[in-house]
Amino acid sequence: MAGSTFGDLFRVTNFGESHGPAIGCVIDGCPPGLALSESDIQPELDRRRPGTSRHVTQRNEPDAVEILSGVHEGLTTGTPIALLIRNTDQRSKDYGNLLDTFRPGHADYTYWRKYGHRDPRGGGRSSARLTAPMVAAGAVAKKWLREGHGTTFTGWMSALGPIEIPFDDAAQIPLNPFYAPNAGIVPQLEAYMDQLRRAGDSCGARIEVRAAGVPVGLGEPLFDKLDADIAYAMMGINAVKGVEIGDGFGVVAQRGSEHGDGLTPQGFASNHAGGVLGGISTGQDLVVRLAIKPTSSIRVPKPSIDRAGHPTVIETLGRHDPCVGIRATPIAEAMLALVVMDHVLRHRAQCGDVALPLPPIPAQAPGS
Amino acid sequence: MAGSTFGDLFRVTNFGESHGPAIGCVIDGCPPGLALSESDIQPELDRRRPGTSRHVTQRNEPDAVEILSGVHEGLTTGTPIALLIRNTDQRSKDYGNLLDTFRPGHADYTYWRKYGHRDPRGGGRSSARLTAPMVAAGAVAKKWLREGHGTTFTGWMSALGPIEIPFDDAAQIPLNPFYAPNAGIVPQLEAYMDQLRRAGDSCGARIEVRAAGVPVGLGEPLFDKLDADIAYAMMGINAVKGVEIGDGFGVVAQRGSEHGDGLTPQGFASNHAGGVLGGISTGQDLVVRLAIKPTSSIRVPKPSIDRAGHPTVIETLGRHDPCVGIRATPIAEAMLALVVMDHVLRHRAQCGDVALPLPPIPAQAPGS
Amino acid sequence: MAGSTFGDLFRVTNFGESHGPAIGCVIDGCPPGLALSESDIQPELDRRRPGTSRHVTQRNEPDAVEILSGVHEGLTTGTPIALLIRNTDQRSKDYGNLLDTFRPGHADYTYWRKYGHRDPRGGGRSSARLTAPMVAAGAVAKKWLREGHGTTFTGWMSALGPIEIPFDDAAQIPLNPFYAPNAGIVPQLEAYMDQLRRAGDSCGARIEVRAAGVPVGLGEPLFDKLDADIAYAMMGINAVKGVEIGDGFGVVAQRGSEHGDGLTPQGFASNHAGGVLGGISTGQDLVVRLAIKPTSSIRVPKPSIDRAGHPTVIETLGRHDPCVGIRATPIAEAMLALVVMDHVLRHRAQCGDVALPLPPIPAQAPGS
Amino acid sequence: MAGSTFGDLFRVTNFGESHGPAIGCVIDGCPPGLALSESDIQPELDRRRPGTSRHVTQRNEPDAVEILSGVHEGLTTGTPIALLIRNTDQRSKDYGNLLDTFRPGHADYTYWRKYGHRDPRGGGRSSARLTAPMVAAGAVAKKWLREGHGTTFTGWMSALGPIEIPFDDAAQIPLNPFYAPNAGIVPQLEAYMDQLRRAGDSCGARIEVRAAGVPVGLGEPLFDKLDADIAYAMMGINAVKGVEIGDGFGVVAQRGSEHGDGLTPQGFASNHAGGVLGGISTGQDLVVRLAIKPTSSIRVPKPSIDRAGHPTVIETLGRHDPCVGIRATPIAEAMLALVVMDHVLRHRAQCGDVALPLPPIPAQAPGS
Repeated sequence: MAGSTFGDLFRVTNFGESHGPAIGCVIDGCPPGLALSESDIQPELDRRRPGTSRHVTQRNEPDAVEILSGVHEGLTTGTPIALLIRNTDQRSKDYGNLLDTFRPGHADYTYWRKYGHRDPRGGGRSSARLTAPMVAAGAVAKKWLREGHGTTFTGWMSALGPIEIPFDDAAQIPLNPFYAPNAGIVPQLEAYMDQLRRAGDSCGARIEVRAAGVPVGLGEPLFDKLDADIAYAMMGINAVKGVEIGDGFGVVAQRGSEHGDGLTPQGFASNHAGGVLGGISTGQDLVVRLAIKPTSSIRVPKPSIDRAGHPTVIETLGRHDPCVGIRATPIAEAMLALVVMDHVLRHRAQCGDVALPLPPIPAQAPGS
Repeated sequence: MAGSTFGDLFRVTNFGESHGPAIGCVIDGCPPGLALSESDIQPELDRRRPGTSRHVTQRNEPDAVEILSGVHEGLTTGTPIALLIRNTDQRSKDYGNLLDTFRPGHADYTYWRKYGHRDPRGGGRSSARLTAPMVAAGAVAKKWLREGHGTTFTGWMSALGPIEIPFDDAAQIPLNPFYAPNAGIVPQLEAYMDQLRRAGDSCGARIEVRAAGVPVGLGEPLFDKLDADIAYAMMGINAVKGVEIGDGFGVVAQRGSEHGDGLTPQGFASNHAGGVLGGISTGQDLVVRLAIKPTSSIRVPKPSIDRAGHPTVIETLGRHDPCVGIRATPIAEAMLALVVMDHVLRHRAQCGDVALPLPPIPAQAPGS
Repeated sequence: MAGSTFGDLFRVTNFGESHGPAIGCVIDGCPPGLALSESDIQPELDRRRPGTSRHVTQRNEPDAVEILSGVHEGLTTGTPIALLIRNTDQRSKDYGNLLDTFRPGHADYTYWRKYGHRDPRGGGRSSARLTAPMVAAGAVAKKWLREGHGTTFTGWMSALGPIEIPFDDAAQIPLNPFYAPNAGIVPQLEAYMDQLRRAGDSCGARIEVRAAGVPVGLGEPLFDKLDADIAYAMMGINAVKGVEIGDGFGVVAQRGSEHGDGLTPQGFASNHAGGVLGGISTGQDLVVRLAIKPTSSIRVPKPSIDRAGHPTVIETLGRHDPCVGIRATPIAEAMLALVVMDHVLRHRAQCGDVALPLPPIPAQAPGS
Repeated sequence: MAGSTFGDLFRVTNFGESHGPAIGCVIDGCPPGLALSESDIQPELDRRRPGTSRHVTQRNEPDAVEILSGVHEGLTTGTPIALLIRNTDQRSKDYGNLLDTFRPGHADYTYWRKYGHRDPRGGGRSSARLTAPMVAAGAVAKKWLREGHGTTFTGWMSALGPIEIPFDDAAQIPLNPFYAPNAGIVPQLEAYMDQLRRAGDSCGARIEVRAAGVPVGLGEPLFDKLDADIAYAMMGINAVKGVEIGDGFGVVAQRGSEHGDGLTPQGFASNHAGGVLGGISTGQDLVVRLAIKPTSSIRVPKPSIDRAGHPTVIETLGRHDPCVGIRATPIAEAMLALVVMDHVLRHRAQCGDVALPLPPIPAQAPGS
């Protein structure tokens, strides 16, 4: 269980390093008969791709995906779908001097202690670049869920460093480099980022991601609860340090009389639960928030040591995202889609089709 | 993958319902040669047992554990350790009227939609009672880790509803019914709970749990990261809605220059990371926090519906914890121990013994 | 992966030792809504139970099964079904002297080398007694498959030691202690067994087991092929040394023109394949044969050594089956049922209901 | 669980189709620090490569392997090793006419029934070509086991159709196209193959594969027994219909007094068990035999049907192996190596290093 496979029935096995010949994944368990081509996947890859604005790393990778298997005459065959992305822009010299030292906040030290031997180029296996194959796999899951169940996924940035981003209009999300659902705040975000970059520093962010049109009854009772699997998926994204479902940490100060979502003939009266009760989907929107730490690669000098234990000082040059959270939005969407996809297949296995007998009430309350 | 097995190499398969004949688990993968008897497990079960103070449910269960297999002449044999706990105090009549309605905040509705047929007595499979076998399994993991690696686990309550509980003295934790590391605040907590109980309402809580003496190098690079598995384990505990590692959501407003933990010849200079970098343990303390929602079973009336979709009103009688968070502390410790145990075995499989070549620096900084 | 769980989606986790307090299993993943009680399981346990004729061990165990969870008001709930069988007849003194020596053909030596510490009583974990919980779990799978898909399982003995048993009449199988589909040969089998017993020796056997009414399309293309999983299940039964599907080892001397099963508008013209092509079920009968070695526990003296490496001689007293193959028939049926059950759920997950669009031809040819 | 991943701790995920752009695999769980390059893998691929003699398919593929990840500066890093083999010689027109009909003995019918949509070119996913990535993965396992434990693997053909091949000299195996351990019989084998080819027919074969220098104590007690996993691996190889361990089906007519392997201070006195007792390795040679059916692709006409159920006649042209068994030898070795590798890692996880305390006796008897 070396941990490169995600999912149980819709299994994605990820491979590659930041500066190796290629990265990619193998999707096993995709249902047959889904119309699929590179053009269904590439747009999602382009959303997380570096070099798209001055606010993200200037590393320039086309991230062109090639489908190696599992699709015949434009339809999935039910056999493994292998996706290959060649690495093209590798300035290894930027990193060569880091083999003997440990960048604070990075996995250099832990990889060295775990494996003894590691690939230091661009963080090797620990690079956020390895999220690209997951975004590609997520695109397959998103398409199947959208076409089969009308399930959709939307993520946005709700805070950039100290700046809270009030939700105004989902239509704005794709129109700015921050995935901010609020056009008015964009100039403030840009000014903050420019100042950070000048300071050679970085900042954290909070991302919110939601799924709508989620079938009722997804998730297992004890372990592999839907929210537990979501927490696992989100905490596994590079730099994430916290995960919330529904009201999240806000529940600590709540009372039961205020938290529990009442039911009415018209549906749930509220969604404090974030779409999950007892680990199983209610049919309401899934509501998830992530806390993303500031990029560890900064120009500001930090004390560290070398492999011999001698003190040294690290200033990370190279090309980096001053806020890794900016590109995390499509990644979080993809991971949420992979979790939901896996649970739809799991539900079909034990309980048959997710089209359960119609409920006496709409699973989704109007406006909730 | 119906989700009743926790762990990959130290596998715990859980069974039972709140009011069925028995609950229990089967532990598969425990190393042979560990001295083990019921007396190693019972004390941990007693910590989470109901009826121990007026602040928790008055349901009175001895929760006596019986070892059915896997131990011969006082030593584990490496074969499955089956643990059985008979249910003794089942007032099913308390719940009989709930078969046709859905308690707000409970899993009644989602179980009905998922399975069609459910056991409503005491929440059936969704009852927090099913954490008892995990506490028992955690006791086995704790003992093996303590004896083999000196790893220890400590949890406490850091907030009860709106009341923040400053950490004062770990020695106080077992001396009060709240697991509060602060003797002075206990009267305030008791007063708050008494008032809640009179109001027939409930409140949330925040729990912090730490592991010390954690081997370096535990966790997988991409998925099954140590922190991702911790998030999965914690979010899977009943009523948990948020999980943080290290600085958690505090990282959103931090800068990289402030967050990254510098290294010195004497060890890490700080522990903002909470003991995990790149998903792999640093050897520092693991720092985890959980948000626990208010108990959903309250006397305060809530609107709901019946299976036919007709409106009704729910007032939950029966015996309940006004704050499920109180008993969550030993549960969170147990789940963290199970995650660490599993990763020690995983590490041994791929990288050999966790006793890696000595580091040039202490993995644990003095006082950190 | 300590190997006590069988199956992926219909998961059976087995626990216990021959002379411990109890044996049993936990079934996770059973679909909800199946009518189930102990009376559905006990008859299958009684078929493999010891003490039923003079030709099997005289150890006398009622093997009474108790359902501990997963069933409410007579219907499965979709949550884990825990089955408990208390051990009652344990003459541990029969085996006490074997702790320090290794019985030839037994697992004594390998357990000692693997674990260092072992339970020698009655073979501990390696006893064929641990097949009882699998027979119980198989009874659940058999019922679900029979009611849902009309799938049935039939096993018989096709050779006892050197005596070939021609298939005559399936109706005879339950009417004699050998599961022989041939009444006329029973006296010869009994005479052979009586003579063996007098000689204090034992013999091997060949068992054939078939499944009829198997849905088309079960099995995975590359690994987890239906026949590979059958081979895994059968070779895992105590004392099995060979497994065949369809023509088995007979294919070595066949030609392609003779082996390949032609298709006609009325169905397959033959079943050399044994119901599996490319690892996937054809809808024809599954045809499986097992070779079972002679019981290793015999009175005839055998050279062995003790733990210090000194030579000794072993004569196994105690109560044993002179031919373990006799009781293997219901076990083989149960294991085949568990494999088919698991693959039906797996098929549902990826491809939806097994009720695929009707074929242009019957999947099963008349008389095949 | 769509069945494209082999192994639990040394996991090989296989992808590709016979005539797609590429085939390959991802190995997850390989220990770090193993010296590895394409030159360690290519020789094993060349052994199973088509076009090497007139007795195998004339399809001509270089099967050049590329390592895409998991190796840095010549050493494995412990992260996934992705292996890519581009398909180069694809005469799809040879197969185009087979989309609408079902070749007897092939998976055409079952794939169609399972998935609805399939890739018919060269058998698509069901082609024996997909064993190439397993041979590549097996080469990695073989190297690690040889260097770490001195374990070696040797396979040979013991029967070609009706011709038994007596074992004479292992040194002969690589010197003839049949992997026959007997130089004298090669002319007879060649004559038989030439006559078969002229007849447009095919034949079966029996392969024997052994492992020497196997650590003691590998395998799990109940399921995932070493012999059960071997049976699973071998039965999963294309065209295999039977698997034997040790004396295999020969045990049916044996007596216990003859079968059980006695122990002496110098080691086991015999190896009827084939190196496994109670599912756990004894340290003696693993002895495995496979029955391989005749190639289903033959020129001899066979009755079949089309997708509409109308009768037709199939004569398979294209390029095929008249005896798939010939190329099965390196495949069987690779699969056995993968099973042993996985169990070494599993043993390390639960029991620590396989270097158990020295036995009082050599685990391997002289000459056994």
